Amino acid sequence: MTFAELWKQLLPVGRDELTGGYRRYSWSHADAACRGWFARTASDLGLRADCDRNGNLWAWWGTPGAGSGPAIATGSHLDSVPDGGAFDGPLGVVSAFAAVGRLRAAGFRPARPIGIAAFTEEEGARFGVACLGSRLVTGAIEPPAASDLRDGDGVSLAEAMRSAGRDPGLLGEDDELLAELGCFVELHVEQGSALAGLGAPIGVAEGIWPHGRWRLDFAGRADHAGTTRLADRRDPMLPFAATVQAARAAAAAGGALATFGKVAAEPGAANAISSAVSAWLDARAPDEAVLGRLVAEIQSAAAGAAADHGVGFDLRQESFTPVVSFSPALRERLTRVLAAAGIPAPALATGAGHDAGVLAARIPTAMLFVRNPTGVSHSPAEHAELADCETGVTALAAVLADLAGG
Amino acid sequence: MTFAELWKQLLPVGRDELTGGYRRYSWSHADAACRGWFARTASDLGLRADCDRNGNLWAWWGTPGAGSGPAIATGSHLDSVPDGGAFDGPLGVVSAFAAVGRLRAAGFRPARPIGIAAFTEEEGARFGVACLGSRLVTGAIEPPAASDLRDGDGVSLAEAMRSAGRDPGLLGEDDELLAELGCFVELHVEQGSALAGLGAPIGVAEGIWPHGRWRLDFAGRADHAGTTRLADRRDPMLPFAATVQAARAAAAAGGALATFGKVAAEPGAANAISSAVSAWLDARAPDEAVLGRLVAEIQSAAAGAAADHGVGFDLRQESFTPVVSFSPALRERLTRVLAAAGIPAPALATGAGHDAGVLAARIPTAMLFVRNPTGVSHSPAEHAELADCETGVTALAAVLADLAGG
Repeated sequence: MTFAELWKQLLPVGRDELTGGYRRYSWSHADAACRGWFARTASDLGLRADCDRNGNLWAWWGTPGAGSGPAIATGSHLDSVPDGGAFDGPLGVVSAFAAVGRLRAAGFRPARPIGIAAFTEEEGARFGVACLGSRLVTGAIEPPAASDLRDGDGVSLAEAMRSAGRDPGLLGEDDELLAELGCFVELHVEQGSALAGLGAPIGVAEGIWPHGRWRLDFAGRADHAGTTRLADRRDPMLPFAATVQAARAAAAAGGALATFGKVAAEPGAANAISSAVSAWLDARAPDEAVLGRLVAEIQSAAAGAAADHGVGFDLRQESFTPVVSFSPALRERLTRVLAAAGIPAPALATGAGHDAGVLAARIPTAMLFVRNPTGVSHSPAEHAELADCETGVTALAAVLADLAGG
Repeated sequence: MTFAELWKQLLPVGRDELTGGYRRYSWSHADAACRGWFARTASDLGLRADCDRNGNLWAWWGTPGAGSGPAIATGSHLDSVPDGGAFDGPLGVVSAFAAVGRLRAAGFRPARPIGIAAFTEEEGARFGVACLGSRLVTGAIEPPAASDLRDGDGVSLAEAMRSAGRDPGLLGEDDELLAELGCFVELHVEQGSALAGLGAPIGVAEGIWPHGRWRLDFAGRADHAGTTRLADRRDPMLPFAATVQAARAAAAAGGALATFGKVAAEPGAANAISSAVSAWLDARAPDEAVLGRLVAEIQSAAAGAAADHGVGFDLRQESFTPVVSFSPALRERLTRVLAAAGIPAPALATGAGHDAGVLAARIPTAMLFVRNPTGVSHSPAEHAELADCETGVTALAAVLADLAGG
């Protein structure tokens, strides 16, 4: 199976006909269809498909832990943000299968096992915690906290897993799996346009900006929009609005990023003053000190605006990923292998979180980026040229062959 | 049946256990339960229950159009805003049944028919147009426009009515019904605390501020929150935030009211820049010139902020109710009858829309307000004291007896 063939099979799964975007939320029907595709593809390639205790998928070439040395892991994730693009996640999984297919077809026999992973809930689109699958594996989130995470309909992760026939009692740090892994190389579409600017189809990641997600709750008082004097109102929409503007100004001043992409007003009636507004802040910065100052500044602006309107305010960190520097030795090795294969791969920093960033706390990890001509991501317009995707497969195959040993 | 008994029967219907607020949306299960309660109550009182072409409920004492002179109509509505209070709407319907019950028990025999109405979708909570039932009756909205209104799940009014066994093909101006009605007197809980300040349990409405609902659409571009430079963003959340603040400032400067109680960000992911933000403006002012200037100022601020961020902007009026002056003759008559009954009833203006305001375009209408100790409305905390509700029933019974003639 070529990259293009595998890509075409997966493309319709979980795609919204109206927007053209993807809604592949973990443990949903679309997710089950993605899992089915993963299992069939593994089977077609003669790989053994498996699901770890935390719901992450694996396809094995060779048997990890069987004395042939630590395994080489690659892959990415299949879930999406709401109305996300086709590439963010799936490109790494499809490229991994295509690279293994090419190596097999070429008669390559790996000295060490090669594993292809699809981590669950990388986007945090359903349960609110990004990289949930890899966080569980590495112990970065406690099983009870993960089990109790709830989606927008109030369904817990434990309930969603049970509905999908999985036992949430098995969730948790997976030292056995981690001990079998020698390293993890994640291929991913670039979520920016640096490679386009450099004229390079492939890049090697340097590190990931520290980043996190904070929930802001503004508690006001529901009242009739037509009869409550302005002076008598405790309208939480006003301090929320002030906070959106303060966050942008603080991010601009600090060379950082701050975004409010999700907001919920209760009760949500056009003719009622809101009783509460909840909003989610995504903040990222080149280093943790800058990020800390940025969030403190936004928190202070929000608290001040809330007080001005007689509105209660609370801020809670929902997730945090410290700065990640990928393994220097692994990065150098990748760059050397790619140069030998005729693929010059410049080094890039990124503001996006990835499972490779979470796994970096426990095993050497590295990432390859594939050029994104417009830089657009988390959108149906996300795109990469087929020729660049093919170069990505070539690059990943070369890297896997080098790391797994022939 | 006393007021308290009728009130107690209706109280649990459509109440959310968690918030204590009501979710009585038109043509929902809760709405069907309210309709069942209306029919049973009418039957218990020996009234003929009926549903007009537009889905509004009627309970008749006497037969309208049978040559005994134009009917005296009273009532209000049973639907609620999301998590609304128990009184807004139902108080007028329950008080009407209680007043008729008292008149019957006292042996009163009306010379003219008396009709009790429960208008459908007064709040516009499901289909977005307030006073939809009375607008349809008076021809203030065209049947095709009404049929095509959609709720948050994309279900049209026509579909919702069909599911409830009603024929949406019958929707439209009901001249036959209007010709039978001599006047309409709506009793309603006050949605402010003016009566509390005046120490009066009952008030007579002077008029209703002109008011309307406008939908604002900010169209940006979805992008990854972690990788898109601030300068490259077209984030619609920012001009929305600026508009919220501009609206409050403009309303304060103009002695008017402006509220954003409903907002939707697409795709609504914490780690994605929104592709679009839609928000609903509720604006009201003492006169139409002030209201026009207010909305123009908000529109201009929104368009300017959108342009600053490379974001598209569109504003559309979803509903508009001109200034309403209730019938001076009817108001004077009510005040005189109440004074004779020992109930002094001061005159009040209001910023809230009501079915009585819509019907005023076609027949003489008036309103009685019942004291609201805190002024809170459109909230589970909405309240009126039982003694004041009983005084409301006494007032309404006196008014009906006077208008219907014994």
